[in-house]
Amino acid sequence: MAISNNRLKKIEEFENKIGYTFNDKDLIDVAFTHSSYTNEVKGKKKSNERLEFLGDSILDMIVSEVLFKHYSMKPEGWLTKTRSRLVCTSSFAKACEKFEMTTFLNFGNGERQGGGELKKHVKADTFEAVCAAIYLDSSYDNLFKFLKENYKEEALEIINDDSIFNDYKTKLQEYHNAKDRKILKYVLVKEEGPEHEKTFTMAVKLGNKVLAHGVGKNKKQAEQKAAQAAYEKIKRKNG
Amino acid sequence: MAISNNRLKKIEEFENKIGYTFNDKDLIDVAFTHSSYTNEVKGKKKSNERLEFLGDSILDMIVSEVLFKHYSMKPEGWLTKTRSRLVCTSSFAKACEKFEMTTFLNFGNGERQGGGELKKHVKADTFEAVCAAIYLDSSYDNLFKFLKENYKEEALEIINDDSIFNDYKTKLQEYHNAKDRKILKYVLVKEEGPEHEKTFTMAVKLGNKVLAHGVGKNKKQAEQKAAQAAYEKIKRKNG
Repeated sequence: MAISNNRLKKIEEFENKIGYTFNDKDLIDVAFTHSSYTNEVKGKKKSNERLEFLGDSILDMIVSEVLFKHYSMKPEGWLTKTRSRLVCTSSFAKACEKFEMTTFLNFGNGERQGGGELKKHVKADTFEAVCAAIYLDSSYDNLFKFLKENYKEEALEIINDDSIFNDYKTKLQEYHNAKDRKILKYVLVKEEGPEHEKTFTMAVKLGNKVLAHGVGKNKKQAEQKAAQAAYEKIKRKNG
Repeated sequence: MAISNNRLKKIEEFENKIGYTFNDKDLIDVAFTHSSYTNEVKGKKKSNERLEFLGDSILDMIVSEVLFKHYSMKPEGWLTKTRSRLVCTSSFAKACEKFEMTTFLNFGNGERQGGGELKKHVKADTFEAVCAAIYLDSSYDNLFKFLKENYKEEALEIINDDSIFNDYKTKLQEYHNAKDRKILKYVLVKEEGPEHEKTFTMAVKLGNKVLAHGVGKNKKQAEQKAAQAAYEKIKRKNG
């Protein structure tokens, strides 16, 4: 089925946004077609499900190769855990949001739920399908370049947030479970900076006593920093 | 650490076997070094675990791309299921056996268990590591060529064995659950042919009555064929 002029305009808008022009417009048109749309609209046969299947495996390989080559001293366990934090629904959904990719997506009315927000996995699937379309339309190297130019910082942030390998909240709670069976609480102390560069300050408390503060780019990170500070105080005292 | 002459000879033997000569001998040496060996032998630091990490994702991508491009009419569900049957421990272990890759593997004494047979996952890991080594030493295209030349038939056999999509054993049992609540049994009737080209004949029985026979390249396939024959008899009788 031929692509309508309106649709071609939309595609051009997206191309300008990402700085890449597709040779095969059908490819990106399909990448932006959710199965809920093909179920509701007759005559339009292809949805992005197959592209999503391919995109997932390409992204997995690109991430694996980058981690393997740039983190040559890290053991396999670290590589596997870090890959699973990069190649996942929530990180792909965020990547999709960067270019507001779902504003170009054809989807059925049933898919918009609870105030019009699309589900996370729909966003992630769209990102995977778009990446597969870039790969098929050009090359592995070109997709790699696109990802590097647009997502390097976000990826580094995930890679360097090694709180999952050093879970101080758990360590601190375990210490107090053994010592006084008291439950720790985390409270927000401060939130500052512009929308996209906010920092959060959290306090970790034992009853009414503040044990330590921590600052981070999100609440979770700030909690970990607070727990780390408290844990290190204990270690200094006891060691 | 330099590679010993004995080891280099072994590597050359493997290269002749697979028809590919490594530029970087360290790479294939590491691919053939299991972590159980590095744990027991001092001075030798690298094991194939990191290569295995990379190999797994490259193989996943190659399989995904082949399925995507050659089965353009198949839906995403079929692609995903078929990929998971190709990219798995048992199929990689078999691929490893083809060139007897584990005869080149350095591993610790602890790894040989129960009569000297290496575990399936050690074989699969070795295959993944060797594929990663070929990829890093040359290119994606070269690895693809190696796989196509050596594993195309085996892959086609797995792809075309769509018994998992037509599980006649389950269908037949469900029929009898509803009809007479009797449990089906499968018994081996015949096993013939040379070691690598065996065929198996299985009978499906209801009590002492043989419902049908089936022939296949393994017992599982023969069972499915027997169940299919029995199920089609019922359909002819009832339909």
